[in-house]
Amino acid sequence: MNLKHRIDVAAGRKPADLILAGGRIVSVYSGSIVRTSIAIADGVIVGFGDDYRARRHIDLGGRYVSAGLVDSHLHIESSLLTPAEFARIVVPRGTTSVVADPHEIANVMGEGGIRYMLDASEGLPLDIYLGLPSCVPATDLETSGARLDARALKKFVDHPRVVAIGEVMNYPGVINGSRDLLAKIRLKPGLRVDGHAPGLTGKDLYAYIAAGIHSDHESITAAEAREKLMAGMHLMIREGTTEKNLAELVKAVTPANAHRCFFCSDDRSAEDLVHAGHVDDILRKAVRLGIPPITALQMATNNAPYYFRFAQRKGAVAVGYRADLVVFDDLRRFRARMVFKDGRLVARDGKMVVACRPKRKPRTANSVKMKPVSARSLKVPARSERIRVLEIVPRQILTKARIMKARVENGFAASDVHRDVLKLVVVERHHRSGSVGIGFVRGFGLKRGAIASSVAHDSHNIIAVGVEDEDLAVAVRAIEQQKGGFVVVDRGRVTARLPLPVAGLMTDQPARTVAREYERVQSAAHWLGTKVEDPLLQLSFLALPVIPALKLTDRGLVDVHAFRHVDLFV
Amino acid sequence: MNLKHRIDVAAGRKPADLILAGGRIVSVYSGSIVRTSIAIADGVIVGFGDDYRARRHIDLGGRYVSAGLVDSHLHIESSLLTPAEFARIVVPRGTTSVVADPHEIANVMGEGGIRYMLDASEGLPLDIYLGLPSCVPATDLETSGARLDARALKKFVDHPRVVAIGEVMNYPGVINGSRDLLAKIRLKPGLRVDGHAPGLTGKDLYAYIAAGIHSDHESITAAEAREKLMAGMHLMIREGTTEKNLAELVKAVTPANAHRCFFCSDDRSAEDLVHAGHVDDILRKAVRLGIPPITALQMATNNAPYYFRFAQRKGAVAVGYRADLVVFDDLRRFRARMVFKDGRLVARDGKMVVACRPKRKPRTANSVKMKPVSARSLKVPARSERIRVLEIVPRQILTKARIMKARVENGFAASDVHRDVLKLVVVERHHRSGSVGIGFVRGFGLKRGAIASSVAHDSHNIIAVGVEDEDLAVAVRAIEQQKGGFVVVDRGRVTARLPLPVAGLMTDQPARTVAREYERVQSAAHWLGTKVEDPLLQLSFLALPVIPALKLTDRGLVDVHAFRHVDLFV
Repeated sequence: MNLKHRIDVAAGRKPADLILAGGRIVSVYSGSIVRTSIAIADGVIVGFGDDYRARRHIDLGGRYVSAGLVDSHLHIESSLLTPAEFARIVVPRGTTSVVADPHEIANVMGEGGIRYMLDASEGLPLDIYLGLPSCVPATDLETSGARLDARALKKFVDHPRVVAIGEVMNYPGVINGSRDLLAKIRLKPGLRVDGHAPGLTGKDLYAYIAAGIHSDHESITAAEAREKLMAGMHLMIREGTTEKNLAELVKAVTPANAHRCFFCSDDRSAEDLVHAGHVDDILRKAVRLGIPPITALQMATNNAPYYFRFAQRKGAVAVGYRADLVVFDDLRRFRARMVFKDGRLVARDGKMVVACRPKRKPRTANSVKMKPVSARSLKVPARSERIRVLEIVPRQILTKARIMKARVENGFAASDVHRDVLKLVVVERHHRSGSVGIGFVRGFGLKRGAIASSVAHDSHNIIAVGVEDEDLAVAVRAIEQQKGGFVVVDRGRVTARLPLPVAGLMTDQPARTVAREYERVQSAAHWLGTKVEDPLLQLSFLALPVIPALKLTDRGLVDVHAFRHVDLFV
Repeated sequence: MNLKHRIDVAAGRKPADLILAGGRIVSVYSGSIVRTSIAIADGVIVGFGDDYRARRHIDLGGRYVSAGLVDSHLHIESSLLTPAEFARIVVPRGTTSVVADPHEIANVMGEGGIRYMLDASEGLPLDIYLGLPSCVPATDLETSGARLDARALKKFVDHPRVVAIGEVMNYPGVINGSRDLLAKIRLKPGLRVDGHAPGLTGKDLYAYIAAGIHSDHESITAAEAREKLMAGMHLMIREGTTEKNLAELVKAVTPANAHRCFFCSDDRSAEDLVHAGHVDDILRKAVRLGIPPITALQMATNNAPYYFRFAQRKGAVAVGYRADLVVFDDLRRFRARMVFKDGRLVARDGKMVVACRPKRKPRTANSVKMKPVSARSLKVPARSERIRVLEIVPRQILTKARIMKARVENGFAASDVHRDVLKLVVVERHHRSGSVGIGFVRGFGLKRGAIASSVAHDSHNIIAVGVEDEDLAVAVRAIEQQKGGFVVVDRGRVTARLPLPVAGLMTDQPARTVAREYERVQSAAHWLGTKVEDPLLQLSFLALPVIPALKLTDRGLVDVHAFRHVDLFV
């Protein structure tokens, strides 16, 4: 950066690179709309007023100019898109910065996953900051692709785009003073530490905050949000594809605390990003819910950069700030007509007008490494008549634990379509260990066939549910062949697939393609008889042993309340 | 710090050190008053509620508890008090943190001055943070005690109590891109850079901000403050002993920008601190002027620490925050009944209850080093009939430039009591250079005798005004003997004095003594016939060559508009 040049332009001694003329500036620092022109040099806003000279003028015709939108916490992997494809879909929506926690890919690839995310986002017209994943693996009850201790994270803390320790999900560990967690929290003085404190209250909450946690995005009631704000936390208001907290949490936002509140999407599907939008969608809803537009924009633009202390001034239409700008027709629908990144027009009328490629192609290798799986290898000799069964709760990530009579076929416990008890398998796919967990799930409703996925939180082993062992084995092998993703198998043949070759989690296909293919996979699954709304999403949480009550990992069933493995047979 | 222990206390597993029970917490993060108890461990707030155990309880009897008050910008030297004595007078007023710019002592002692301020404030029950003085010396038209370039400042930037580059007063230098100033501004990424931009507007203001300046405390109109806020600056609202901007600037504070505004005293005299108060005085006035009490407290406590990014969480009654607390009877008079620093009761009912001594005695040596001065050495042969005369403007630091007929006595230009034209001398006192500037000043009104001071902005040479050369010489020599300070001389004898042996700027006498002695010196000066309200303060600005129109340094008269030396004789 040439500071001297910027000063010269600001002082009017040299021409600016660009002038945005005739707009209405949304000034979050004065709480007002100001009609004036913006002079930009070197990617930075250097002054206001109609008497600057410039090489290039763009007339905004009275439209509103805001700072670019910021997502304060998300997992890009949830979109199934690589960072470049993610950028290509959200930048035209007005998003210019996000803080991503690459927790999913780090569970698969460890340090390589963090490096992939940094490489794959370098040079994009979207600033992708990272919160370093703090809880890899989530538990010791499963086989993850990697372990990241404080020493491993330390290698990344000085990267200019690392702005936080990502959500510290293991709050019991923090509250109990786990040494490794405290080491992660204290990794670098001044570095933000994001929280994850669903329902935490009173002394537990205080202990968690006292440990050095600065924010939370898991509040679901206004009372919970108020308690966290008062206790000193910054409030990330989440509005994701499945978790929607905005309507409730806006009740906790007041003029006194608005500057401590900001938005996040956490997890948004490609389809949601394509059809509903990103931060623009949250902004639109917030204003509809009664937040004054300038306050909503302050929350969507300024507050997160100020909280995270981005190295460069960002998040306001102000002097010395990066010229990350979005032009809206009005402050109600927030349709982004133009988006500027570092003073360059990058999107117009909902479409990118510049390339969206990382500086250099990031390294990835096939992440699906497993021992051969056959129908025979998925059989379980019946050792008793009664088995433990996971029962799904529609649209929720928790399960109920049941004990049911086993259906036994030739001495083996088997799926029972009539009672809707289906075989569920989790196949380790990181280290070729051959570790396979087998259980049964109720509520999926498949009448035949199998579905499988390499997206299975948090370790992302291969999870599959099905009626016949043959179809289960075909599905798991198909996932292996396509290096990860989703498949649906009917009568021994793959009827729909969405390959996710990047860590078994992401693809470099465009968002619209991914949304369409995902829809096809869902349809194929519904064709097999399931009534579950989003069977792949539901499936992807059945291996997550930190959410009650009964889950299945590659090492077997987990009683989450007892936090230990239990036998399939009672 | 023992983080594990704090977590244990917060979680209720171990007893707290102290519980403040039965208070009303002013919660700036929820914008409300909350009746609950505060648990403190290890100097930090660890939780709220009435069911913590503790070694010690203090009942607050329904009183209000706020975070300790913060002064965001001041020069401790202006109080004439050492940091310890300054702390002893402001802590009982509720101040627990200040950001001091040791600009005055640095002009005398250079790096030694910064080191003195760090040493002299280490271990006090007041957190004294530093902004590193950015403009030493102020100009090249005078002889200062030291030069501080970027390389010199770099030695201090990593000190845990250095939080900013202090007010960058040389705004023309910044706007013109001075290399040394830009190097200072960019000394450390993320370090705040405080501004000083009186009346700066439009392109000049934008150039100044674009260079990397984050705040300003020189606004005097609401319109000016609004422009600076919108442009992206943080607004420090100054209410000092002579500069009083609060009543005007509160008009610019709105719910949308209050979190970007905070208070500073800049320069407060010992007398003012003793009688009116410190930040508590500003707070009281702000509420009287219509700022809601919780907002005023937010400005007085939370906003500056958040702006400066103090290493430890501070400035709110919230979990994980330092237990720097002040207890008020009401939110109108803001009389501090109790003050806690790091969880320890340090003041009660306006008096310190703990010692106020730095960890180790800071090093100072006599800073007054000058060649002998005699009445003869202060004589000026009359080289023409007309001389340039500084005319003072009561209560202002600027002067008018006049040309008058000289009174000539035995071939020497001399004071003329009838026309109120008195001899003014500035004697270099840092390097024994023997450099002496001689001029004449109108408006002081002395009928006889002389007054002298080693406080003379910004280089703090010895300045003296008087009728007879003999008295002038006695006054200057008296300053030398007492190692700095103020003296009044009448008929060859010192009639009043206030020694300031620390750098010729400060004393370790208590504030009340200093206020009383200062009053005596003023009376003695008034006895000599001057009608100037505060003759020593007025005198101390006559050597400051950055304020128009005509000033006198040890190197001679300065035409400030032309920014060069001019001859006494026309």
